[in-house]
Amino acid sequence: MEQVKRRDFIKKAGIAGGAALLAGCAQSQQNNAPAVQTGKHYEWKMVTTWPPHFPILGEAADNIAKWVEEMSGGQLKIQVYGGGELIPALEGFEAVSAGTAEMCHGAAYYWAGKAAATQFFASVPFGMNAQQMNAWIISGGGLALWEELYAPFDLVPMPAGNTGVQMGGWFNREINSMSDFQGLKMRMPGLGGKVVSKAGGSAVLSAGAEIFTNLERGVIDATEWIGPFHDHLMGFYKAAKYYYYPGWHEPGTVTELIVNKSAFEGLPKNLQAIVRAAAARANTLVLAEFESKNNAFLQTLINDHGVILKRFPDEVLNALQKYAGEVIDEVVASDAMSKKVYASFDAFRKNVNGWAGVSEKVYYSSLST
Amino acid sequence: MEQVKRRDFIKKAGIAGGAALLAGCAQSQQNNAPAVQTGKHYEWKMVTTWPPHFPILGEAADNIAKWVEEMSGGQLKIQVYGGGELIPALEGFEAVSAGTAEMCHGAAYYWAGKAAATQFFASVPFGMNAQQMNAWIISGGGLALWEELYAPFDLVPMPAGNTGVQMGGWFNREINSMSDFQGLKMRMPGLGGKVVSKAGGSAVLSAGAEIFTNLERGVIDATEWIGPFHDHLMGFYKAAKYYYYPGWHEPGTVTELIVNKSAFEGLPKNLQAIVRAAAARANTLVLAEFESKNNAFLQTLINDHGVILKRFPDEVLNALQKYAGEVIDEVVASDAMSKKVYASFDAFRKNVNGWAGVSEKVYYSSLST
Repeated sequence: MEQVKRRDFIKKAGIAGGAALLAGCAQSQQNNAPAVQTGKHYEWKMVTTWPPHFPILGEAADNIAKWVEEMSGGQLKIQVYGGGELIPALEGFEAVSAGTAEMCHGAAYYWAGKAAATQFFASVPFGMNAQQMNAWIISGGGLALWEELYAPFDLVPMPAGNTGVQMGGWFNREINSMSDFQGLKMRMPGLGGKVVSKAGGSAVLSAGAEIFTNLERGVIDATEWIGPFHDHLMGFYKAAKYYYYPGWHEPGTVTELIVNKSAFEGLPKNLQAIVRAAAARANTLVLAEFESKNNAFLQTLINDHGVILKRFPDEVLNALQKYAGEVIDEVVASDAMSKKVYASFDAFRKNVNGWAGVSEKVYYSSLST
Repeated sequence: MEQVKRRDFIKKAGIAGGAALLAGCAQSQQNNAPAVQTGKHYEWKMVTTWPPHFPILGEAADNIAKWVEEMSGGQLKIQVYGGGELIPALEGFEAVSAGTAEMCHGAAYYWAGKAAATQFFASVPFGMNAQQMNAWIISGGGLALWEELYAPFDLVPMPAGNTGVQMGGWFNREINSMSDFQGLKMRMPGLGGKVVSKAGGSAVLSAGAEIFTNLERGVIDATEWIGPFHDHLMGFYKAAKYYYYPGWHEPGTVTELIVNKSAFEGLPKNLQAIVRAAAARANTLVLAEFESKNNAFLQTLINDHGVILKRFPDEVLNALQKYAGEVIDEVVASDAMSKKVYASFDAFRKNVNGWAGVSEKVYYSSLST
């Protein structure tokens, strides 16, 4: 009775805003699941696009499983598999769609072949950064579109991490003008790779494990990866000496948790809420880890390994941005869902950047670094 | 048996990093609480420093309660009270310490009178922004210090929101040089207020409800509040026409969830983990909401209400930064815990800003806004 009165009070006080906030979540929770179902236990599998226990990203997947198990008191146990342990690393979307595993931790641009619009939920060249992607997805209508995009595949997506701004990559020669992109063989997946191709280079795809050897042997001239912490682990400084910034192709890459929709809706509501909260906790943790660790490794690369840190010239960034616009136009023209998603993305980007102009942009411009 | 093997496997594979990540959490969870305790129900109270259901911030408190109830299947129910409903708005620290309520949602600088170092866990003038504060607290050692600071009060703190960069405030006259601060009566609490005093003004404290009237009647010449969304709701544009940026005094204010430590440790571990996850989910939601809503209201203020948007001159920002340094030096000199906390804060700030110089700073500088 007391609870009923309290709910009634909240309702009367009109927290419509609060309710609206949660509209995206409500979409996937509007099902007939019971609030709790004690006694019934679940053993799930989570595949990942990362090597087993890969620093920060694979660890986030491990943490999601750990937190869900803790929060549910063991009612939902999730076994995490690194890429290749249960299925190949980049087949998570299909595997979870088919129910081979109930979850996948990865990044949406890996599924561009399934639906082009997935790319807008990972990272867009010259697009939004971590804080802005979170704002779009969580509060700006992004999540509802993402759910709409994944529903036909029987999947539910959730944001579950962000890399922050990445580095522009490792090059075995200087990039002084756009002519240096002519014939440049660069490892770069996704929309960024298409931009490199438009710029006169050739975008090469290679799995993580092959990049170093390809770079060392001159099979490729350049590669992007993530940022100083991970790039240091990969040893790229032994094969290329120019380390460029900024990561124009990935200004804030979202990592996602995807869940088989039928399996998710078959969970009692308390476990559904637990999964959402674990993803949210991972979301913040991953970005915090990147922010926390990158600088020390950047300094190590420069001071201990003689890496030459360079900024892409403005002329190069401007030209790449123009090509990025063309690449995005082509994706948007390719199907209706891409058009719809990008319209939302782009409108939000303009909105949030208006605010950034008097807030975060001014904050960063005042830093003496 | 399968679970044991899996744990063993993870252990052997050496995710020491993942375990280390969680060291801060472990600190408060190393107690003898059982993993689950079905049958036992908890009815808790959460007081807040905000008016009831205050947009974004009070809504976050409501959401934390809602999520905890959902996740726990009703085992932990939390009744949320707006400021003044159960106790006065700024007595949450004492009330939760005494066990009058089990939780408080607020901001740590409100408790400067209890322990000066609390201020470093909310916002520091010319300090870190939201992304950096999260990184420091979650991955840079901040949480362990915060827990150490609160433990003598029988409290456990958790980050549970961030406002992002705030605005610099509303002024009834232009600020062209430091001489304009002479005699300026400005409503500004905390460390920022001390900076205004050093600059020749006088920092006035007034509760939210009184600010508009004081500004309109000339009792004060200026006031800071939060940002365009909330400031618009307060109607300040009717009483002052100059709206200054950036919010040098609050570049990324953390909102916190504080929990009575004895009560927290009396919860079974699943409920402890649920409370932590709900706070983490609120952390991301609050910042997303600010990012999402501020620009539209900034445009409304300018275009519909004739507000004049102005940037503080560099000369003014530089002088305020110098005074901020003096204010911080005084706090640090005042007690050992402030010194210890600020040393960690400052070292992390330098580290993260090194990385910002090739990542977020470059991202924002490229925006055409």
